Amino acid sequence: MSLPSNITWHAGHVNRSDRERVLGQKGVTLWMTGLSGAGKSTIACLIEQKLIAQGKLAYRLDGDNVRHGLNSNLGFSPADRTENIRRVGEVARLFTDAGVIVIVSFISPYRADREAVRKKMAPGDFVEVYVKASLAVAESRDPKGLYKKARAGEIRGFTGIDDPYEEPTDAEITLDTEACSPEESAEQVIQYLQKGGYLQS
Amino acid sequence: MSLPSNITWHAGHVNRSDRERVLGQKGVTLWMTGLSGAGKSTIACLIEQKLIAQGKLAYRLDGDNVRHGLNSNLGFSPADRTENIRRVGEVARLFTDAGVIVIVSFISPYRADREAVRKKMAPGDFVEVYVKASLAVAESRDPKGLYKKARAGEIRGFTGIDDPYEEPTDAEITLDTEACSPEESAEQVIQYLQKGGYLQS
Repeated sequence: MSLPSNITWHAGHVNRSDRERVLGQKGVTLWMTGLSGAGKSTIACLIEQKLIAQGKLAYRLDGDNVRHGLNSNLGFSPADRTENIRRVGEVARLFTDAGVIVIVSFISPYRADREAVRKKMAPGDFVEVYVKASLAVAESRDPKGLYKKARAGEIRGFTGIDDPYEEPTDAEITLDTEACSPEESAEQVIQYLQKGGYLQS
Repeated sequence: MSLPSNITWHAGHVNRSDRERVLGQKGVTLWMTGLSGAGKSTIACLIEQKLIAQGKLAYRLDGDNVRHGLNSNLGFSPADRTENIRRVGEVARLFTDAGVIVIVSFISPYRADREAVRKKMAPGDFVEVYVKASLAVAESRDPKGLYKKARAGEIRGFTGIDDPYEEPTDAEITLDTEACSPEESAEQVIQYLQKGGYLQS
């Protein structure tokens, strides 16, 4: 990548705007919340693909790269779930400060945990994306066979079965995954970023 | 940033190489270790400035943005210090995977803690940078007045005074801050990155 012509170099510390100018975008956290089976991962991957294809830097944080690394010393007790989301929120905040479009994909069922992350970020830096599907539909998809295990009592504290999912009340974006395809949902998020000026520095 | 012409788009998930092509660089962790007063922060800032001026994405992780956020629930006991470095290492690993040149600036006095981070990363992804100064010189600089407080017994467990600093034995880069200026030291790191192919995708 060559130096963009709009870099105005200044003495002293590099700041977020400098990084955003290098990237030609604004840092933001897309926080995707929803039931298991709602389609968070699928849509997150499509958003990431679309952004990278436009030359934007997007990065996904999800169970795969966080639960086995940073949060490998956390379990699934209520306190550990809260700490899990707190840490993910802090890492998302660092990535956002770095200028990255970070796509967080966790069920994150508790409203208070999501709100705590939002409160630590500047206005506009936290975009809550509710990946919406009814329990009946999410359970019928059951991509990982987890609902079946939860119904059989093999998994305890499963969101939607014996642990609550608290719907967002003020999500910036709601994706109706029963009416729209994953492709359409991803496009809805890209449009939001475009209109919000996130795809330019 | 427009789409680089060397993007070869593929179906399926975005991977690290895709992000690195967007950025025109390779992700890497520059792990700067050394005594308080050795010059870690000063040199880290200069490296960051030089990289951003070249249109590269660099990001610093240090006490300022980690201790008050991600690691705000950790103290300074031996166990908490180890967990502090573990989490910083995991976050650096995520940034490296994102394609970012992440500059970690922590005293990180214990060899075992640094080695644990190195072992979790792929060869070439972890570059240990020993910011070297003798205790006498670091203490004479004392930019934050911390050695004075430690000598007066106002701070306990201070590295170099009543807690050990374990010198790196296999650092990829050693910066002799008694012989070289911060500017020269930063340039030494940039040369290492250039020669190692990190500044191209």
